[in-house]
Amino acid sequence: MTDTRPVSRFGAVELQDMPDDLRERVGAVAEKSGFVPNVFKALARRPRELRAFLDYHDALMDSDDGLSKAERELVVVATSGANNCTYCVVAHGAILRLRTKDPEIADRVATNPYGVELSPRERAIVDLALIVATESASLTEAELDDARAAGLTDDEIWDVGSITALFAMSNRLAHLTALRPNEEFFLMGRTPRS
Amino acid sequence: MTDTRPVSRFGAVELQDMPDDLRERVGAVAEKSGFVPNVFKALARRPRELRAFLDYHDALMDSDDGLSKAERELVVVATSGANNCTYCVVAHGAILRLRTKDPEIADRVATNPYGVELSPRERAIVDLALIVATESASLTEAELDDARAAGLTDDEIWDVGSITALFAMSNRLAHLTALRPNEEFFLMGRTPRS
Amino acid sequence: MTDTRPVSRFGAVELQDMPDDLRERVGAVAEKSGFVPNVFKALARRPRELRAFLDYHDALMDSDDGLSKAERELVVVATSGANNCTYCVVAHGAILRLRTKDPEIADRVATNPYGVELSPRERAIVDLALIVATESASLTEAELDDARAAGLTDDEIWDVGSITALFAMSNRLAHLTALRPNEEFFLMGRTPRS
Amino acid sequence: MTDTRPVSRFGAVELQDMPDDLRERVGAVAEKSGFVPNVFKALARRPRELRAFLDYHDALMDSDDGLSKAERELVVVATSGANNCTYCVVAHGAILRLRTKDPEIADRVATNPYGVELSPRERAIVDLALIVATESASLTEAELDDARAAGLTDDEIWDVGSITALFAMSNRLAHLTALRPNEEFFLMGRTPRS
Amino acid sequence: MTDTRPVSRFGAVELQDMPDDLRERVGAVAEKSGFVPNVFKALARRPRELRAFLDYHDALMDSDDGLSKAERELVVVATSGANNCTYCVVAHGAILRLRTKDPEIADRVATNPYGVELSPRERAIVDLALIVATESASLTEAELDDARAAGLTDDEIWDVGSITALFAMSNRLAHLTALRPNEEFFLMGRTPRS
Amino acid sequence: MTDTRPVSRFGAVELQDMPDDLRERVGAVAEKSGFVPNVFKALARRPRELRAFLDYHDALMDSDDGLSKAERELVVVATSGANNCTYCVVAHGAILRLRTKDPEIADRVATNPYGVELSPRERAIVDLALIVATESASLTEAELDDARAAGLTDDEIWDVGSITALFAMSNRLAHLTALRPNEEFFLMGRTPRS
Repeated sequence: MTDTRPVSRFGAVELQDMPDDLRERVGAVAEKSGFVPNVFKALARRPRELRAFLDYHDALMDSDDGLSKAERELVVVATSGANNCTYCVVAHGAILRLRTKDPEIADRVATNPYGVELSPRERAIVDLALIVATESASLTEAELDDARAAGLTDDEIWDVGSITALFAMSNRLAHLTALRPNEEFFLMGRTPRS
Repeated sequence: MTDTRPVSRFGAVELQDMPDDLRERVGAVAEKSGFVPNVFKALARRPRELRAFLDYHDALMDSDDGLSKAERELVVVATSGANNCTYCVVAHGAILRLRTKDPEIADRVATNPYGVELSPRERAIVDLALIVATESASLTEAELDDARAAGLTDDEIWDVGSITALFAMSNRLAHLTALRPNEEFFLMGRTPRS
Repeated sequence: MTDTRPVSRFGAVELQDMPDDLRERVGAVAEKSGFVPNVFKALARRPRELRAFLDYHDALMDSDDGLSKAERELVVVATSGANNCTYCVVAHGAILRLRTKDPEIADRVATNPYGVELSPRERAIVDLALIVATESASLTEAELDDARAAGLTDDEIWDVGSITALFAMSNRLAHLTALRPNEEFFLMGRTPRS
Repeated sequence: MTDTRPVSRFGAVELQDMPDDLRERVGAVAEKSGFVPNVFKALARRPRELRAFLDYHDALMDSDDGLSKAERELVVVATSGANNCTYCVVAHGAILRLRTKDPEIADRVATNPYGVELSPRERAIVDLALIVATESASLTEAELDDARAAGLTDDEIWDVGSITALFAMSNRLAHLTALRPNEEFFLMGRTPRS
Repeated sequence: MTDTRPVSRFGAVELQDMPDDLRERVGAVAEKSGFVPNVFKALARRPRELRAFLDYHDALMDSDDGLSKAERELVVVATSGANNCTYCVVAHGAILRLRTKDPEIADRVATNPYGVELSPRERAIVDLALIVATESASLTEAELDDARAAGLTDDEIWDVGSITALFAMSNRLAHLTALRPNEEFFLMGRTPRS
Repeated sequence: MTDTRPVSRFGAVELQDMPDDLRERVGAVAEKSGFVPNVFKALARRPRELRAFLDYHDALMDSDDGLSKAERELVVVATSGANNCTYCVVAHGAILRLRTKDPEIADRVATNPYGVELSPRERAIVDLALIVATESASLTEAELDDARAAGLTDDEIWDVGSITALFAMSNRLAHLTALRPNEEFFLMGRTPRS
């Protein structure tokens, strides 16, 4: 059962081969995490697309205004679980564990986003995210009112919906490229840091 | 049956109220088409997100390298039809009619992307797009080989998959905001231009 | 992307080749609309079946008793959209536009019958129709009570359900025969009549 | 667990209260079978619709030209099973048992039309019927060729598709009216006739 | 349409060839019903598995403590119908008829478990069973409260859920082995015993 | 996001409170693994059912005859992932990691059993398991022949099908009881043993 998959079905661009701006930008991430997340190596095949991807990602994920960063990752892990996206579940599951300091949350949310027990606010976030992820055409004002009743503002609803939408894209790109998660992600946040 | 829906459930930003760079960029589109497409007014609520959206869109849709522009719109209309996204079907259906000079193609593709009769190359493009749109988790190498057998290069496969992924996001944003198509789109490209 | 499909996968019968009663009956429709709708040419392969089809259709669609004619077409367009039936969406979409004088309603209803904004009465009609179209086995008395609460009488409920049932048949016949919509339908009712 | 359901949720018309032509026509059926099938009592609420229903039914079911009568009932039982229609399964299951003199066939086909073991010709008939019943939008020429390869002529394919379409309507009418099967049907054809 | 299927796709073990304990245990059932139910002949290929199967079955089905025996069979027939399992529908449909003395109940429940009219308690039992059978991942405390509101105790809820779970296994074993129902089951309980 | 869920929604039986035979049997497992797996505490509410569960489990999982023990766990993790069962994914994912010494395999298989890259034999095993788990009614002889072509014997096919069936039950019991995975499982087999 050895995994000999390449980073991406369509090849990978190493950090040193990226255009200057991307090398700097991705390099900053790599320095912080200790490795270059494979999604950047795969998408760097198309620098313009990678730049837009990074911009969209940062605009939605690097913020504590409204939804907390942990809640943003919760949306990613729940919808990536519903979409069966291994790269996003493994990579963002790691970040969710780090943000929450809960070593079990990612596996529980990703395996069964439909039934996992959460706080009422978290449940409302995940419920809305799952609707947008899997049946957005029939999203009703009444379902938005449920989210509002759980305390979400319209800006937070926008965040939940937009993060879900961004990872609807991201999950499909990962499936298209058969994207392999970096091995470092699998263990991150699972053990108490001493 | 009068339609009194606002542009977006979360409000709209008029062109003159957008930040300078967006006013210029969206203004250029408006000048060309004669009106400001509602998607820009809705997403301008979040300028950073709109910028990234425009960048991603332009990187994938404004190109004739590999897939033709008409084929790119074919992917958008087929998958937006499968996702029941009225804004994208109406707006990109208009563009598809203009690009193909075929007044029937958009209605046929959007209503039944699964069965619409197309050329073998177009059929391969739509088949792959539908898999990525609706069941990307089980995308197999054999399905990619079917696309290759129909003549698609790996770069064209990337285009089909990435455009589908971008509109997986776009369709969900339109549903989230209950985005209203501009009335101009409904009639564009339906009559022979004299 | 030229459409070279025949009228029907199983051949077409021209008006002059139909049995006398059908030639007269279909001819009357043709005189009024200016062309012979392709569904008649396709079904005329089996005159007995076409007669029954016409009878059933007229009994349910040519009436203003209870549901208005526009509401009857609304049921057809919504359920044909849910069933991805291009012929019925294009042909009855045209009639719906004529009946409502709303050039956008058909595209909006057919593309996303699940989420399209409608008046409460129209919403109740479409909700019931979609249940009968896609999950009639679990239709509950409570769902009928919802329709009644929106003001529908039992006769109107019967109409909604029966029209949906008739087009469950009709949509499948159109798919079976790969029925091609007449080009005239695509543009009907889209422009204000001067 | 006593069944106290009425014939139909919307009332029933007894034979003597039907218009003359229907009383005669339905009466002839009743004389032959020994009772008035409930579907006629329920649909007689709308005489014009019942007439068209009878005409369509007779045009497709009372024929041995191409598909045998047993094969026609096989289509009805398989698709009504897939649609979870109790009236049609019980009533046409009885007829299928009578036509085939096989007391087990109806229960086997209705309970699991997807997997029931059949002769290759029967399997081809049921496979095509299930596609038309449940996913007709994506019916392909290749699937019709599978039916042709199993020996079905285009007229027989039309029969399979049209009978399936007719019962797509019929099943929905039965669900709409909560139609109760006559108790006589349950036992018909289950025991060898001495 | 003759049925020449073997008992099981993987062969059958006759009573006399079973290990002593199973021959005695299955023999006792056979003596009571007059024949050896085919499920035992099929599973006897693996004596350890058959023993565990019998133990689990008896623990859940041979009890009147809480759910009545008829209600237990109702769960089996409803979920086996939803799972399209011919063996279980035919065999347990027979037992349900015997337990209820209602010759119609099994066909009605198995054909349309979603819509069959039942008493409120029976409806609550079947509703819960269908959730566990088809979408258990999203079972909510609120759905259990619905069952409690209909009068079910937690022990009865356990029974409904566990019987459903046992037949989720059983239905799949029957499909795996293409298990043939004994002909005796088809007629049992259909006629009033004189 | 603290997890304060109890072991089971219906209470838990501690080891010392179990009947003698179960205390001994479950105690032996606990001694080996260092803790009492929660599934036993939850099912011990019904000792007869737990005994049968243990017997069935041991008959199918404690064997290297045909399928290897790792392959048996692969079936459990793949189908429990498809069924969104957190307990079984977490617990058997741990065992799969131990059996394969591959720290990534469980997350990859459980998150996306449909697309995970595997050896041809493993792919055939998982493909068959997924059919039995999610659409067993339409299992065809041709699909079994695919498994045979990949080298599986009929006994191995039986194992794959029966293990899938057993966990169809097990997953539903875990969902019914809202079964909480022991925290020990989450980390087992993730780090190289020194």
